[in-house]
This record gives sequence, structure tokens and C-alpha cells, in this order.
Amino acid sequence: MPEYRKDPFSDRWVIIATERAGRPNDLRHSQHKDQVKCCPFCVGNEIETPDATAVFLDPRSGEWAVRVVPNKYPAVIRDEVEHRNASGIHTTAPAYGAHEVIIESPRHIERLTELSADDLRVVLAAYQDCFRRAARDPKLVYGLIFKNHGILGGASMAHTHSQFVTTSSIPTNVQQELDAAREYCLKGSRCLFCDLLETELDAGIRIVCQSSGFICFAPFASRFPYEVWILPREHSSRFELTPAGQLSELAEFFRNVLVKLDAALEQPAFNFWLHNAPFDSATYDHYHWHIEIIPRITNVAGFEWGTGDFINTVSPEVAAELLRHAS
Amino acid sequence: MPEYRKDPFSDRWVIIATERAGRPNDLRHSQHKDQVKCCPFCVGNEIETPDATAVFLDPRSGEWAVRVVPNKYPAVIRDEVEHRNASGIHTTAPAYGAHEVIIESPRHIERLTELSADDLRVVLAAYQDCFRRAARDPKLVYGLIFKNHGILGGASMAHTHSQFVTTSSIPTNVQQELDAAREYCLKGSRCLFCDLLETELDAGIRIVCQSSGFICFAPFASRFPYEVWILPREHSSRFELTPAGQLSELAEFFRNVLVKLDAALEQPAFNFWLHNAPFDSATYDHYHWHIEIIPRITNVAGFEWGTGDFINTVSPEVAAELLRHAS
Repeated sequence: MPEYRKDPFSDRWVIIATERAGRPNDLRHSQHKDQVKCCPFCVGNEIETPDATAVFLDPRSGEWAVRVVPNKYPAVIRDEVEHRNASGIHTTAPAYGAHEVIIESPRHIERLTELSADDLRVVLAAYQDCFRRAARDPKLVYGLIFKNHGILGGASMAHTHSQFVTTSSIPTNVQQELDAAREYCLKGSRCLFCDLLETELDAGIRIVCQSSGFICFAPFASRFPYEVWILPREHSSRFELTPAGQLSELAEFFRNVLVKLDAALEQPAFNFWLHNAPFDSATYDHYHWHIEIIPRITNVAGFEWGTGDFINTVSPEVAAELLRHAS
Repeated sequence: MPEYRKDPFSDRWVIIATERAGRPNDLRHSQHKDQVKCCPFCVGNEIETPDATAVFLDPRSGEWAVRVVPNKYPAVIRDEVEHRNASGIHTTAPAYGAHEVIIESPRHIERLTELSADDLRVVLAAYQDCFRRAARDPKLVYGLIFKNHGILGGASMAHTHSQFVTTSSIPTNVQQELDAAREYCLKGSRCLFCDLLETELDAGIRIVCQSSGFICFAPFASRFPYEVWILPREHSSRFELTPAGQLSELAEFFRNVLVKLDAALEQPAFNFWLHNAPFDSATYDHYHWHIEIIPRITNVAGFEWGTGDFINTVSPEVAAELLRHAS
């Protein structure tokens, strides 16, 4: 059973999930077309995955467009054991939660940009549904949507997919964002993210693109070359409340950003994740949902792991300039 | 000129160092023996590097055994500009410091384990000298020794070397350790690291090996499969104060741990770094220097970058068991 263990020097949790070591990896070796035949994520091979927790249909064909299934090798599980077992220096907790896979296409495609904006809208709607379903379990506190693309991005399956991990505590990075945003709000009754957007729009030099509802920019303190963030222009703490019309706009906008990264960086490996408000019913006037995208074109090394800080050899101003003109 | 930029949501700093993008990379493509001829770290090619800041001789041959040179592509530089330039949301600071390369052998060898324990002792003495030299500059606050080995470890040069980066602030991870250790000490007048060692020695199951002066164990909340830490058994906050006799013992012990990792994991890419007390003259009864080693056999992916937490598929108990028997 997976277990949370707390680092005694920081707020960081580690999930020891030995069951995950056995998961298949069709990306580890050079790929053969044969693997497509037995890809468990392809239409027709549904029996290879656990039963779907949600299915989104393609209105044209009547077949599924997006399927959400429990991860066969979960990092967290729904288990009734709940008490923390703290013994001396070491703190543990059961890794309570759910771990789902969002299969983003019935076809064996590998890049999200191979989907049309319409298809990507269904993927985003599936993400919204993940948050809504998970919020019904009072023991779950947080949910993270993330995507690993390519070997350097940590993907183990080639078929385009993302993941949803729900947890009974707020992740370290999200808690830091919440704390900083609350502190900022207490001082000036303003949302730090909204002010950040205003600062970036005024400066202009780190803006990659914008639509009526969304803005993409390279963060001032980008950890990684060509790191970009997408935020809704209007304050919104909960992604799942994005109305259908805006979701269509986001699908087109998000796809456009991914196309730019593909064009500028020759289809890089990448990760993205969606930072959303926790599931509780609190009002998050100070928090603003956003998507963070990091191309994986450099290796994080000893300096970064040893310090927790980063060396980035591409300034966000140069990155934004390149991406603005890429398509 | 490199610049520190602060993430507005955390204490994390990013060094924007665009000059580093131009550094050579003899590991990026498959290696050819030809590259050895022009390796700037090899004996005879000293003219290819900046002048040495320290040289350690081999008493047998009278030639250099270890050479410390300024990094040609530094992440930090000694510059007189000192004031922080905070404008609105964005905080910057000059990346004041020094960045040196410790060339660990005159011969073109790639793994530290190809050095004898005697040769490795000279490398460790060079590390000590780095700390002593840097501590003389009152503007420098901290120094980190680290090593990147292999492409997955972020190395760009194959010839065995490590790096020393000094900074005018304490790195995020080290500050967290210092804060946690101070808090622990205030409660019980004990060193958290000393108590951790006692706990691990009592438990036994995460101990990899021990000598009269040193202990190697897999941390209870290991972030990475086969992550191991080396600590001196007796409390010591400053690595550079380790006496010569103990340094010889450490060289043999450290080499043995690296040999175990090589044997168990088939010569993996890895990083290690040395966490030491800051340069100030404070007494660090609560801090204990140590070396952290992480094999790079898995990719950190969206979950880790998105949460700041980790999923580890190999429990430290299993890792320690395997490493105990490897040689």
C-alpha cells in the first residue's frame, strides 16, 4: 500500500509507491509499430484497462472521444486507514486518494497538438469533470491534472494521455502559492495573480500570446528554458467553473501555445500541470487557476537538486520573443 | 551578467545565466575517442581553461593530481553591483559569487570510482580548500560542492569533475534544513541530524554501510530510488574542519558507496552535493554536514514539478538491502 513519508527538514512529502515499479513502459526502448497493436489506450482494447470512471462521447461517431480510467499502477489509493503514524523523527500517513488516467483520444496519436481544438475541448471538459467528481469525496482535499510527454518528460506510454491524482493534503508547491497569495491579499486586498498579469501586460516583453479570455507569458523567474504559464484574464480560482464558451476558447488558445512550443523547439518532451483551488468550500478571492508548461530540453542537475534553486540559461524575455513569432 | 530572480510564490531563486547557454557539451552526442584529444580538462591542455585557482600535486609524479579552475561559463560572477533592485512584484539581485570546476584527475577518466581512495582523498582536500578560500570573501555567504555525472545527471563534460558555486545568499534547501534543525534544537537541545543517525542505527533497515567515523543510509523519505546520504558519526557542522586522518577514511568510505551504486545499478548517471554550514562565524551546534547522492535512473515528471512532492517506486528499505550486499 502506498505511504506518505515526510521529509524531516522541509514540508515535502514523498509517496513511497512500490507497486508503481511494475508498470509497463512502451517508451523505454525505441518504438516499434507493433506496439500499437497492443496499446491498452487504443479504441478496441478497452478490456486492457480498468473500467472507465467517465466517458465522453464523440457526437459525430457516437464512440468515445475521451476515456477516464483508474491507473492500474496508482501512486495513491482510496483506503480506509486514515490515522497518521508518527514515530519519533519519522512521520507517515496513508497515501489516500485516487489516481486516474485521461486517455485523450481513441486513436494512437502521441501529441496533443494532433487533436483539433474541438477534440481538445472535450479533453478540457474531462478535466473539469475530474475535479467535480473528486470534490464529492470529503476526504479528498486536492486534485492535480498533469501531463508527461516524451521520455524526457517521464512518460511511460506513448498514446496521448494525462493524469489526475487526488490527495488528502495540499501539495507543497500549491500550499506555497496559496500562502504567498493570501499574504499578498491581506496587505492590499488584491489577487497576486491578477496583479502579476497586469504587470506582465504592461511590460509586454514576456507575453507570448493573448486572446479575449486568456494570457500566456514566460514567468519572470522561469525555472526552465521556454517555461510558459496560461492564466484566465478574469479572476477565477476554480477551473471547473469555466463556462462552456470559454472552454472552447481555451482549447484553441492552449492548442496554439502547444503548437508554438512544437514549432520553436522541434516537438520537445514536456510536462504541464493545472494548479487549481483546493476542494474545500472556502472562497479563494486570492487564488487564480493556471496551467504551467515546461519543455524538457535541459537536464536538472546537482545545483538544482542541491539548492532547490535553478539556473536557467534562456531568459524569459528571449523565450517569449521566440515563441511570439513561432507557429 | 547573471541575475537572481525571485519566484513571487516561494522562497525559490532562479539564476538567469544566458552566458552559460554557449558552453561546450561533449556528452550531447554519442562519444568518440577523438574528443579525448581536445578535452580541456586533460593534462597537457591546461591552456584551454582559465588559470587555476588551486592546484594539488601528486607527490609521486610531481605533476598535478587535482586542478581547480574558474568555470568559463559561470552561473554567478564576482561583480561589484550589490543592491537589490525590487520593482513591484518582481525581485532581482545580482548573482554575486564564484563558480569553479574541480578537475578530479589529470587523466581522461569518467567515473570517480576509477580513482584510488588515495586519489579521492586529494579531491576531498580540494573541496575543503574551496570552502576555506571562499570563506575569506565577506560578501560570500554559502558554497555548494556538487557533481553531475552522465547525460541524465546533467553533465556536459565527460572528464571526471565536480563544481563549486558560491553565493551571497543561503540556498532554499539549505535554509529549510537550517530552520528545521534550529527549531528542533530549540525544543530539545539536540542536533536533528545526530538524532536521525541514532534512529537509523537503531532501526538498521535503511543502513547501507558504516565505518568508525561515517554512516551511509537511505533516507526514510527518499525522493529518488537508491538515494543515499553520508554523514559523519560525530557531530560536525563544517566539512572543511575534518582532520586529515578522517578525510582518508572518508575517501575510502565514499568510494565504497559509489562502487556499491555502480555495482547495483550498472554504473548509473548520478548527482551528489555536499551540504555544509554557511560561511558566517556562527556556531552550528544544530547543523551537521552531509553528502546527498541521487542516482538518476528515473525521470522526474509532471507530478513532482507540479506538487513539489515526490513519488518513489523503490522503498529506502529495499534500496538499502540491495546496496548493503552490492560491491
